[in-house]
Amino acid sequence: TLQHLFKQIFKASLELMGEDEQKALLVSRKKHPDNTVVDVKGEHIGDGQQRLIAGPCSVESEEQVFTVAEALKNRGVNLLRGGAYKPRSSPYDFQGLGVEGLKILKKAGERFDMAVISEIVTPGDVEAADEYLDVIQIGARNMQNFELLKEVGATDKPVLLKRGLSATLSEFMNAAEYVMSRGNTNLMLCERGIRTYETATRNTLDISAVPILKQETHLPVLADVTHSTGRRDLLLPAAKAALAIGADAVMSEVHPDPAVALSDSAQQMDIEQFDNFINTLRAENLLKDGVEETARI
Amino acid sequence: TLQHLFKQIFKASLELMGEDEQKALLVSRKKHPDNTVVDVKGEHIGDGQQRLIAGPCSVESEEQVFTVAEALKNRGVNLLRGGAYKPRSSPYDFQGLGVEGLKILKKAGERFDMAVISEIVTPGDVEAADEYLDVIQIGARNMQNFELLKEVGATDKPVLLKRGLSATLSEFMNAAEYVMSRGNTNLMLCERGIRTYETATRNTLDISAVPILKQETHLPVLADVTHSTGRRDLLLPAAKAALAIGADAVMSEVHPDPAVALSDSAQQMDIEQFDNFINTLRAENLLKDGVEETARI
Amino acid sequence: TLQHLFKQIFKASLELMGEDEQKALLVSRKKHPDNTVVDVKGEHIGDGQQRLIAGPCSVESEEQVFTVAEALKNRGVNLLRGGAYKPRSSPYDFQGLGVEGLKILKKAGERFDMAVISEIVTPGDVEAADEYLDVIQIGARNMQNFELLKEVGATDKPVLLKRGLSATLSEFMNAAEYVMSRGNTNLMLCERGIRTYETATRNTLDISAVPILKQETHLPVLADVTHSTGRRDLLLPAAKAALAIGADAVMSEVHPDPAVALSDSAQQMDIEQFDNFINTLRAENLLKDGVEETARI
Amino acid sequence: TLQHLFKQIFKASLELMGEDEQKALLVSRKKHPDNTVVDVKGEHIGDGQQRLIAGPCSVESEEQVFTVAEALKNRGVNLLRGGAYKPRSSPYDFQGLGVEGLKILKKAGERFDMAVISEIVTPGDVEAADEYLDVIQIGARNMQNFELLKEVGATDKPVLLKRGLSATLSEFMNAAEYVMSRGNTNLMLCERGIRTYETATRNTLDISAVPILKQETHLPVLADVTHSTGRRDLLLPAAKAALAIGADAVMSEVHPDPAVALSDSAQQMDIEQFDNFINTLRAENLLKDGVEETARI
Repeated sequence: TLQHLFKQIFKASLELMGEDEQKALLVSRKKHPDNTVVDVKGEHIGDGQQRLIAGPCSVESEEQVFTVAEALKNRGVNLLRGGAYKPRSSPYDFQGLGVEGLKILKKAGERFDMAVISEIVTPGDVEAADEYLDVIQIGARNMQNFELLKEVGATDKPVLLKRGLSATLSEFMNAAEYVMSRGNTNLMLCERGIRTYETATRNTLDISAVPILKQETHLPVLADVTHSTGRRDLLLPAAKAALAIGADAVMSEVHPDPAVALSDSAQQMDIEQFDNFINTLRAENLLKDGVEETARI
Repeated sequence: TLQHLFKQIFKASLELMGEDEQKALLVSRKKHPDNTVVDVKGEHIGDGQQRLIAGPCSVESEEQVFTVAEALKNRGVNLLRGGAYKPRSSPYDFQGLGVEGLKILKKAGERFDMAVISEIVTPGDVEAADEYLDVIQIGARNMQNFELLKEVGATDKPVLLKRGLSATLSEFMNAAEYVMSRGNTNLMLCERGIRTYETATRNTLDISAVPILKQETHLPVLADVTHSTGRRDLLLPAAKAALAIGADAVMSEVHPDPAVALSDSAQQMDIEQFDNFINTLRAENLLKDGVEETARI
Repeated sequence: TLQHLFKQIFKASLELMGEDEQKALLVSRKKHPDNTVVDVKGEHIGDGQQRLIAGPCSVESEEQVFTVAEALKNRGVNLLRGGAYKPRSSPYDFQGLGVEGLKILKKAGERFDMAVISEIVTPGDVEAADEYLDVIQIGARNMQNFELLKEVGATDKPVLLKRGLSATLSEFMNAAEYVMSRGNTNLMLCERGIRTYETATRNTLDISAVPILKQETHLPVLADVTHSTGRRDLLLPAAKAALAIGADAVMSEVHPDPAVALSDSAQQMDIEQFDNFINTLRAENLLKDGVEETARI
Repeated sequence: TLQHLFKQIFKASLELMGEDEQKALLVSRKKHPDNTVVDVKGEHIGDGQQRLIAGPCSVESEEQVFTVAEALKNRGVNLLRGGAYKPRSSPYDFQGLGVEGLKILKKAGERFDMAVISEIVTPGDVEAADEYLDVIQIGARNMQNFELLKEVGATDKPVLLKRGLSATLSEFMNAAEYVMSRGNTNLMLCERGIRTYETATRNTLDISAVPILKQETHLPVLADVTHSTGRRDLLLPAAKAALAIGADAVMSEVHPDPAVALSDSAQQMDIEQFDNFINTLRAENLLKDGVEETARI
């Protein structure tokens, strides 16, 4: 068993090197103790204030997007999301408007002075995304689409990387490293629920992921309350928890008329519901967005 | 396919009856719209105020328990927990002091005017528990120990029922129904983390369970931040999230000297850490416990 | 970092002791290299031959049990199972006939010269089980009902321990250790599916558990194809896999008329289906039960 | 509640349409009752015979690949796999030889008259894959990389699609539909283990997926015993189970010297171990590959 002890020492040394390597990740806070702040058209995500990101699941028309954008802007929300390329389980479901969707978003961003965020799904989309978007989102299904990560890593466009459906936090941080190792430091992480046995919610919001990622990395950490819960009635409670635990921003979906939405109608808020959502978060002092009491209408 | 449609109608009728049955559960809010408030030695759990429940993982000695109890009481915490019967994965791990532990808890409860909570693991323990405890806890491993549930259901002692390690919320509510169907309405539910693939935390705190259980049942809903995270550094963030999302109480473990604890040393706070824990929750107005600013020392 | 290396060495030593402890488990093959063979009324489970265990989900009546028993016996199956105490998610579902069910089983065992197996759920049942049964089954929900494990461990009755719904193999072996550490070495382990995100099957049959448990322990290892799949159409394929991978026995449920069964009607075979099941397994030489070609009718 | 009943009827109708849609999938057996047989350079996968697919985790050099290829060919194995584009969790791990790897495989295929299989990870690789490979593999991480699926669906090259790490069988079949809806019917499905809480194995081999996929689709179904178990000692038992349950082929990894492999050294067999693997499967009549007793050397 002396031999065995030596083997163990050897293994310990290996693990030690493993830890050192982990420390050496560019995304690691050990490498970079200060918070990274990502400037998205003047919004400094990660600066200590908390923000909402909202918008329709899918971009369906200019009118639809403008209606939501105006409503958000009027409530002091400057970050607009909308899906143009929709990764759908079935090839026969609505697949999004594609580049036309990106153009609508850009127009909305210009008209209402908002930053626009949308997902792309393949390296071929990066050029268009770079032209039309303020933030490129990489969705859960593509968290380990490494060629896509490398491509967006080669731009300097802000990137919002979502956690994979069953990714460990270690895999998530390594996926982020793919982006950062190519030079792009404008990176944000987003917890969006993990797949578990529980079916009462679409996924299980892993709320502990937020403080762990804040601790282990220097990047802004967001929470997507729509995809994690999949239930309109849980958006507000989940947002409260995410803000209280320290998320830099909370994402949710807002549609002028969810009942006729082309995707995910059960989990989007209409504008009145969003009013209640944001007003409650501000009234309970959970959304620390620095918006003055008087400026909130 | 007309035949098929009729089959579907038949199935729909069956489901309809299933829903009606679910509605008919005694624990269901549809059956009983008002919140149940459980009176635990004068603490009215579920009354809208939020509370902390704290204490050592295991009862180890009178001195240990009294030290913690006094510290808690001085900070306005009136609910003391401690393990006397410890269900441990290995038969060779410390199994708890048993009935001696219950007696120490009772003594502490009398000395410091606190309510005491402890887990029992088999029907044979109910009598002693009824004598020495203010709240009987049923742990995650025993959530479907139906004979035990029926036994505690036949008393009128407050019961704290923890969610099983991989129980669905539906199974959890049905387990609660086992207690309530025997007549005991002094029942509280506790989310304590579920087993998932993620290993960064001991379990995954299913924070959405809190609002779902509040919505579906009329019972007080608690969150155990110790067993759900298994990490001392996550107790405070998890407690913030649980309180913000509306938990009626938060459970955590406090030990005078965690390093020498006979169980779970990595996840217990010492008294100084607990001070920081409770002070932060109060300072950030997350713990709505009605304790006056001036009375908090 | 020299300090860090020493810490690592210390940790390695701890792990080393952990491994030694694991080795020291009474259930471990390192402790006892030869296969344990459990004698169940003349059937030597673990002797290298493979067996089927079958019978109704619930004992409903003498007639029902006798019908199944006779059919099994005629096909060379000597191990009869049936549920008398049924742990059910809802308190309003059929809970089994209790001790009356045990008596029916005993009668069937005597009449047809078969060994009878049934589950008990609480320490108070052990005495009756010892009187009426040839094998005491501990079900998945009670795998960590440690008081029950200790009680059956104090008898010398053969015990069939099922893996918990979300138990790791390490926890499963430690649960077995609770039985064996009390002196009862007549112990068999049974894989019965684990809870995962997949809903196409009731649970996910963890087929790799069979060779791992055979390797790590010296105990007979069984597979329950009924509860792992929850689908009648998968019983035969799952049994093929379990036998090919080396299970000592396969459990399945057989009912004279599954459509009217008081529990789990969707996953029980009728007698004709069982005929096809056993005949196929024998015809394909997957069931190595030593029954002569000529004796198989 | 009459209103409620009508709602239910409406929902039932919706579900009915959902089922019809599922039936209408091109991959569905309801649409196409006969087995699809995929011709891979003369090997007719899905024809009722069972095959082995083997080769190194990563293509490292011509010598390495040729050594394995020759050994396989000599044992009657005609399907050679090897990784050229390696999707690795960390950007700092070996990423594969890329197109150089594909060329080495092609050369090996020509030299030893074997079909070669390799994974590609992004639409840009399809052209090279089409030139150098006999089968394009889409790995677990890319099961929902829909642009990649569409690209390979637009070729007529045989495609081997692996199940995602936490994909449901329904999602898996819909991913296959992405390929087939573009016209490519040369499609094979591969179960490769799912992510669960269990850590004794790298993933959990969902053995029931094999008969379910055979039943629901008309496509050949394979099982990858290497990635599902992640343990060399489980390759043989897992292969036995997969063949007994009806897999059309079993994939495993073979390396001339696993200890120095650039990836996954713990789960590859050396050539002697592979000899034992294939000889045991044949000796026990589990591998029904139609290779004559005399031709097996």
